[in-house]
Amino acid sequence: MTISSIDIVFFMLGIAILLFVAKLFAEIAKKLGIVAVFGEILAGIVLGPTVLGFFFPFINDVLFPSEGARKMLLDIIANISIVLFLLVAGIEADLNSVKRQGKVVFTVAISSLVVPFVVIFFLATIMPEVFGGPGDLKNTIFALFIATALSISALPVIAKILMDLNYYRSDLGAVIIAAAILIDIIGWLLFAFTLGLIGKNESSYIPLYYVIALTLLFAFFMLTFFRKLMHKTLPYIQAHFTWPDSMITFALSIAFISAAFTQWLGIHALFGAFMAGLAIGDTYHFKEKARTTIEQFVNAFFSPLFFGSIGLYINFITNFNTILFLTYFLIGTILKLIGSFIGSKMGKLSNKEGIAVGFAMNARGAMEIIIALVALRYNVINEEIFVALVTFAIVSSLLSAPIMKKILSIKMPTKFYDFLDSNAFIYTLENIDKFTLIEKISEIIAKHNNLDSEIVKSAVIAREEVMPTGLEHGVAIPHARIEGLKKPIIAVAICPRGINFQAPDGNPSFFVFLILTSSKDNLKQLEIIADISKTFRKTDYISEKNFPVNYTEFLALIKSGSK
Amino acid sequence: MTISSIDIVFFMLGIAILLFVAKLFAEIAKKLGIVAVFGEILAGIVLGPTVLGFFFPFINDVLFPSEGARKMLLDIIANISIVLFLLVAGIEADLNSVKRQGKVVFTVAISSLVVPFVVIFFLATIMPEVFGGPGDLKNTIFALFIATALSISALPVIAKILMDLNYYRSDLGAVIIAAAILIDIIGWLLFAFTLGLIGKNESSYIPLYYVIALTLLFAFFMLTFFRKLMHKTLPYIQAHFTWPDSMITFALSIAFISAAFTQWLGIHALFGAFMAGLAIGDTYHFKEKARTTIEQFVNAFFSPLFFGSIGLYINFITNFNTILFLTYFLIGTILKLIGSFIGSKMGKLSNKEGIAVGFAMNARGAMEIIIALVALRYNVINEEIFVALVTFAIVSSLLSAPIMKKILSIKMPTKFYDFLDSNAFIYTLENIDKFTLIEKISEIIAKHNNLDSEIVKSAVIAREEVMPTGLEHGVAIPHARIEGLKKPIIAVAICPRGINFQAPDGNPSFFVFLILTSSKDNLKQLEIIADISKTFRKTDYISEKNFPVNYTEFLALIKSGSK
Repeated sequence: MTISSIDIVFFMLGIAILLFVAKLFAEIAKKLGIVAVFGEILAGIVLGPTVLGFFFPFINDVLFPSEGARKMLLDIIANISIVLFLLVAGIEADLNSVKRQGKVVFTVAISSLVVPFVVIFFLATIMPEVFGGPGDLKNTIFALFIATALSISALPVIAKILMDLNYYRSDLGAVIIAAAILIDIIGWLLFAFTLGLIGKNESSYIPLYYVIALTLLFAFFMLTFFRKLMHKTLPYIQAHFTWPDSMITFALSIAFISAAFTQWLGIHALFGAFMAGLAIGDTYHFKEKARTTIEQFVNAFFSPLFFGSIGLYINFITNFNTILFLTYFLIGTILKLIGSFIGSKMGKLSNKEGIAVGFAMNARGAMEIIIALVALRYNVINEEIFVALVTFAIVSSLLSAPIMKKILSIKMPTKFYDFLDSNAFIYTLENIDKFTLIEKISEIIAKHNNLDSEIVKSAVIAREEVMPTGLEHGVAIPHARIEGLKKPIIAVAICPRGINFQAPDGNPSFFVFLILTSSKDNLKQLEIIADISKTFRKTDYISEKNFPVNYTEFLALIKSGSK
Repeated sequence: MTISSIDIVFFMLGIAILLFVAKLFAEIAKKLGIVAVFGEILAGIVLGPTVLGFFFPFINDVLFPSEGARKMLLDIIANISIVLFLLVAGIEADLNSVKRQGKVVFTVAISSLVVPFVVIFFLATIMPEVFGGPGDLKNTIFALFIATALSISALPVIAKILMDLNYYRSDLGAVIIAAAILIDIIGWLLFAFTLGLIGKNESSYIPLYYVIALTLLFAFFMLTFFRKLMHKTLPYIQAHFTWPDSMITFALSIAFISAAFTQWLGIHALFGAFMAGLAIGDTYHFKEKARTTIEQFVNAFFSPLFFGSIGLYINFITNFNTILFLTYFLIGTILKLIGSFIGSKMGKLSNKEGIAVGFAMNARGAMEIIIALVALRYNVINEEIFVALVTFAIVSSLLSAPIMKKILSIKMPTKFYDFLDSNAFIYTLENIDKFTLIEKISEIIAKHNNLDSEIVKSAVIAREEVMPTGLEHGVAIPHARIEGLKKPIIAVAICPRGINFQAPDGNPSFFVFLILTSSKDNLKQLEIIADISKTFRKTDYISEKNFPVNYTEFLALIKSGSK
């Protein structure tokens, strides 16, 4: 098989389309409050045999054929992507946090993993047909695998959910994250053993007890000696070589060597990459800049390509088995909740917290999908089981956040940009005073929201006359409460020449936010003002060379938080 | 051909080793004042048939075989790498700077490119044997190619040289950069035409005039409409999608689509990627964070893999032809100098500046290597010509900096860390006064530099008593001049508890630098103090959670300039 120029053309076109659609869907998913990885997988389903291949088999065959050179090219990229994705997952897991949180982490992690694992392994051994297992000699491997797949938790998704809920830094959040890290490590180890067994059954050149011994030795080595070695080596690299390039290159080399080793052992490259990430990411010498560069590039390139490619070769409709999915979903969820609850009580958490921990741990996310994919490649499971596992991973991840929010009565922080009216935007270079500006903004905001501009104007000016609303950092926040308003409305005026709102630091105001809230709701107004003030304190927007000239540019500036 | 697990093992091991060695050699090259790309290429030569393959053919065959699955895997990575490398090259080229500098840029660029191009094309047509050309019907393509290869300049290398010389922001530096951008664009266009001609000769499905028309149209479209479209689209993406991930994904999708298009046209993917980079990078909306993430990851991963892979398949010793190299070197350099000089004089630069411009433009760097590689793949040149061109590219790049430094009498800025004595480092948690500390440091610095500690101590204390040497930002710089000292010596003391050096901001000093300079050299002392003060003004090192406890950690902190 050789790669022709036209293969490269369609390979690059395929990558471009997959990247674009995967990221687009991921963004839409996020806006709907769904985990991003779901959008990436859906992109592959849409571009694969399930949708595009069904309606336009010709296009699908050209872009994402299921065999030949182009398929192989995409496979390689997926292989590299998974190594880098697991490297990042390892880097993000902070081993020290496990130690810091103490005993409760161990009881939660072990019970949350062991209860479902043991029960499912037992069930899948005595009645394999319920889980779709083969029931033959290979059934032990299948039972081991399905028990692992249904017991694991997905650290990245859990971390993301806690961040979204603004709960990451709380005490309970720290316990959940630390336990998820521990589950991750043990889960991968379990999965590595299962793969070792498969290798033994297939074409292995290394005896099984050797694989198990080497895996344990490798994990131990990476988490002790090698971790300490990194702690000493990284500052040396940083001191004597180009920063941060060399540090990144070094981390990537380590990841690939480690991945090559575990692939050679027969327990898949991803285990090595994850261990390398744990060892490297654990020292504070692996600093922010190198860390974010790797994470951002992997999130922007390798992760959408990897998760996007999953749906490219499998028909998710014809392979969807409702009974199987419901079996996995119910058994997996119930056992996870029970296991987590027992662990939480042993760690002296409250009942409410115990249930919340259970739903957090129930998020299977990317981890279950990855191990299911590997199992599919190794022929341990068929496509039906794969699709059921992927669906379970997504559904369980989707349920986590809303249920946790409800149980823990979490209130989301107010963000002022959620109330911006995109039509009420003014950019003015005129040399006017603050009252004229307030009049202008009032008219626009009133027009687009069916309000009486006279009422708005006079209320805002009355408030302004009581006390000027200029804040520090070039911001002013004229505001008023309007009767009958359903939700807050904010209009923005950008005045590059500066308007005097008598700010306490004596500076003119360049960013003017006119804030209208309901006369009944006092709290929202304070929260909005606090958020605006915090936003402009954190970043120096005044020294921007280019003031935003339209609403989109303004939002872009605020969202990026930097030049 | 299928990819086995063992292929993946050795592919990943190969990548890891190539990455590591390439970056290591690049860093060593930098320390020797040589362009980094030379180190990366040398790594490939060492790991390829020239060295490793010669002494240990078995290892070379396993890691980097010249055919089969593993070879193909590396080829794909190299293909993707080149697309991303050219994307970055395009992003880094600031089109607006060409406009800003005015006429002189055009005269320099055009004369610097056209003079060597026309002369060499003429020479290679009438006497192909001098250039190693085939002399048959294909000779026109060869002449076009060799004329392009020997006339091009390498923007990234030139930019790097000017930065190293601290000359990037000067007037002449801006002219040189802008001219190099213009040469780059025209050079790629010329090369694209040559490739179009080859395609015509080989297996093209598109007629030549069509290729030329489409290439021009594509370049025009990308630099006008598409550039404007990006200017409007990027803020929208930034405003409504996750930042900076989405921006990076979007830029990469554009690059691959554009690359696929030019590959389809038969003028190679790299041209499309470069044009995409130009169009995206040109708006100020493609902001710093997205830009640096792409650049850093490409520099850390794709660039060493690409340049490293060049030497893996070619024997650079058996294919080295001294006569051919000297021909290219002399003809290329002389014509480039003449062309640049004429253009500089037309743009009213001085004689000295004209010669400096010539040596700057003579740096061929990565660009010539890339087009030579493509030409080798397309069988336009043989391995001897390829090796001669690569050698010329490296030698010409090496010559640029020292000659420019000489001609323009450039003085390099003093960096205090160049004079640090790695043995004279103290970390102390003791609660001592400044005189005791000075005594301690004096003893250490004296011991390691064969000085009399009494002389050092009394000189520093005498100076300290005249006026305290505490600076702002937690730094103190006790210093003295010592007779007979050959070059400045600096010792560092880290005192996390803080020592009172009577700093003007009232803060204690945590970083104490004891500076000894020759009694004859007053200037150096001032420069060192200025550099220390600037370093600590720029970054807030005092709020570091972890003070450095040894010399390596200290250097790491200073070099990284951030957490």
